[in-house]
Amino acid sequence: MADDLLADFRTMSKFGATPAGGVERQAATPADLANRAWLRGWLLHRGFRVANDPIGNMFGLYEFTPGAPYVLAGSHLDSQPGGGKYDGAYGVLAAAHAADRLRRKYRGAAVPPPLNIGVVNWFNEEGSRFKPSMMGSGVFCGKIPLDQALGELDTSGTAVADALLQIGEQGRAEVVDPATELAAYAEIHIEQGPILDKEGIDIGLVTSTWAANKYEIAVHGAQAHTGATPMPDRKDALYGAALAVVAVRELADRFGEHLHTSCGQLTVHPNSPVVVPSEVRMHFDLRSDSQELLEEADALLRQQFTAIELKADVRIEKKFGHRWPAAQYEPAGVALAREIADDLGLSSRELRTLAGHDSTNVKDLVPTVMLFVPSVDGISHNELEHTADEDLVKGLDLLTGVLDRLIHQAL
Amino acid sequence: MADDLLADFRTMSKFGATPAGGVERQAATPADLANRAWLRGWLLHRGFRVANDPIGNMFGLYEFTPGAPYVLAGSHLDSQPGGGKYDGAYGVLAAAHAADRLRRKYRGAAVPPPLNIGVVNWFNEEGSRFKPSMMGSGVFCGKIPLDQALGELDTSGTAVADALLQIGEQGRAEVVDPATELAAYAEIHIEQGPILDKEGIDIGLVTSTWAANKYEIAVHGAQAHTGATPMPDRKDALYGAALAVVAVRELADRFGEHLHTSCGQLTVHPNSPVVVPSEVRMHFDLRSDSQELLEEADALLRQQFTAIELKADVRIEKKFGHRWPAAQYEPAGVALAREIADDLGLSSRELRTLAGHDSTNVKDLVPTVMLFVPSVDGISHNELEHTADEDLVKGLDLLTGVLDRLIHQAL
Repeated sequence: MADDLLADFRTMSKFGATPAGGVERQAATPADLANRAWLRGWLLHRGFRVANDPIGNMFGLYEFTPGAPYVLAGSHLDSQPGGGKYDGAYGVLAAAHAADRLRRKYRGAAVPPPLNIGVVNWFNEEGSRFKPSMMGSGVFCGKIPLDQALGELDTSGTAVADALLQIGEQGRAEVVDPATELAAYAEIHIEQGPILDKEGIDIGLVTSTWAANKYEIAVHGAQAHTGATPMPDRKDALYGAALAVVAVRELADRFGEHLHTSCGQLTVHPNSPVVVPSEVRMHFDLRSDSQELLEEADALLRQQFTAIELKADVRIEKKFGHRWPAAQYEPAGVALAREIADDLGLSSRELRTLAGHDSTNVKDLVPTVMLFVPSVDGISHNELEHTADEDLVKGLDLLTGVLDRLIHQAL
Repeated sequence: MADDLLADFRTMSKFGATPAGGVERQAATPADLANRAWLRGWLLHRGFRVANDPIGNMFGLYEFTPGAPYVLAGSHLDSQPGGGKYDGAYGVLAAAHAADRLRRKYRGAAVPPPLNIGVVNWFNEEGSRFKPSMMGSGVFCGKIPLDQALGELDTSGTAVADALLQIGEQGRAEVVDPATELAAYAEIHIEQGPILDKEGIDIGLVTSTWAANKYEIAVHGAQAHTGATPMPDRKDALYGAALAVVAVRELADRFGEHLHTSCGQLTVHPNSPVVVPSEVRMHFDLRSDSQELLEEADALLRQQFTAIELKADVRIEKKFGHRWPAAQYEPAGVALAREIADDLGLSSRELRTLAGHDSTNVKDLVPTVMLFVPSVDGISHNELEHTADEDLVKGLDLLTGVLDRLIHQAL
């Protein structure tokens, strides 16, 4: 059975495979569609009912007790550009295998589990093609209006609605009603940090999530000639943006390990070697385990932006914001997962998640268990992302055990 | 006759016109082709022989004395993205009108001028689509090997050779042999700086050009997760690039008005909001009236780049360089232009050019006269670029007078 998981994982890793060993499988691209089609076939072949909702979340459902609520497990199949093959995809495949193990275990049982089981592939968790990240789970949980999400554009001007239509993955109606048909949720993911790998521990039990503030800003200057325009006359949007990138980074140096900051996306207009840029768009995020510290950092950054506007003679405009607070996962879920890990002889420790996950959304609806397996050297969002086969198998065993308990009693 | 120039200029400004009043007419694009086709018709209709050379320079030639060398005048029809309508285009049109005035003046003259007249539209002066700038004149003057120029790629991977074939503007052979068929060169251009406009002077007599060092660098880091990756483990290429942009700009602050610096183009990979960038490519340039100061600034920047490599844990790789030295224009040409301006009742003053022009290349081959007309507020490489109609006409009158003298005696 372990071999099945690994063989299926190797198959899935071919969808959008890159020469360097990663995947390029951004949301609603042909590679994403190919992976979805493969998973749909896998689930249908094993007797799951498969349906998509209007934001392209894909559900594979199996009933033990007709009409009872579902325990869902899953993650996302989309990747970053030049991303790793484990991020998200492992969690979806492990959920499918775990659900199928339980389907076989309880097929024809005299006393079926009181709750049903489902697998979910959330749409556009990565947020690289369409912002914000965790879009599918955000719509499912009512945090993002459906119409707003469907209207989001990628950099080529294609809306989410059109992208979903192009790959035929937009469903017509809700598949699982989050208010009445969902009992619990579980997700397993690679850690994307180095702790489990460094300490040689099998499983991370996620107790809480860092808070995150994400922004898109536009720095406005004036287009000019790079050679002829006198320096004092320049309103160089890229100089302003560069000062902002440095300010964002150096905030983190100031607050030590309690603050992570970054600017991952920056686009220059008109981006010609001999033109002083007129506008720069950039996305950055601040993340912290402390809401208070995050707010302090945020206020400092706003002060620095005001200083940058003066120094570079530019205007900084906030275009977009997305935030989530620091929050706890259900303690009973952590205890349950630890107990099962102990039973299986797996070592475990508690961890916080610094990255956002779909479970960050779902945990606010229903009791949620979030699990990590090790990432070699903590490398993630990188084609070199790696998790050992044996760790993938241990994670599946644990997830199966957790789901087996949840379908008998949600937390 | 002044009305003809202005009417033709309005016609030409429609090729690639933007709603904000500028033009988008990068090299070898459909808009560039449309403008070239119009100019070809204009020249042919007036009895000029029109031919292109293998790098797409377009010549309109008229013989007074068969077999004699040419006095060429021209500039370039290509623009920056979202550029102004005067930059380059005015110089080509003024050259065509001036040459045509002389054609009519000496048609059937008993004693024809001893030298012939020609108009030239140099290919890809701007360097925005294909690097380096001043490509056509650089190839003509033997500073850039033809094969190298033809192999340069734009960001979509199209080579110069293919782009020229696509618009049908690649000639088969040299049209004017720079070694034996060129006697002198003249170019008129908007100042692209504020001095003439501020001082209310009609004409700038260009005495020298600033030196320029242009570079493309790549900043190499490692792709990682913006949330989960511990800050000390990050090799953030964009942080390194932002420090470089700031260092380049602050060099100029250090050297006052004798150094102009800029970074106009910066491209981030993979450019996703939640991925620490793995690579940033950037173009920057340093320009100075003093070769010595430029070399000092260059050496300082190299030291700062080494410090940035350590601070951001990135590697900075030099990909490409292009430089030209500070140099004088022929003093006899400056004196000639001043004399003609005086005769015409035009005010004039000497100026240096901070921007590169095709004449920067040609002046190293033959005696060259470089003239400026005012730019309102010095605005250039911007859709708001503007020069008053009467200044366009004054410039044409001066250029005509200068060419009239040059076809009788090259400097």
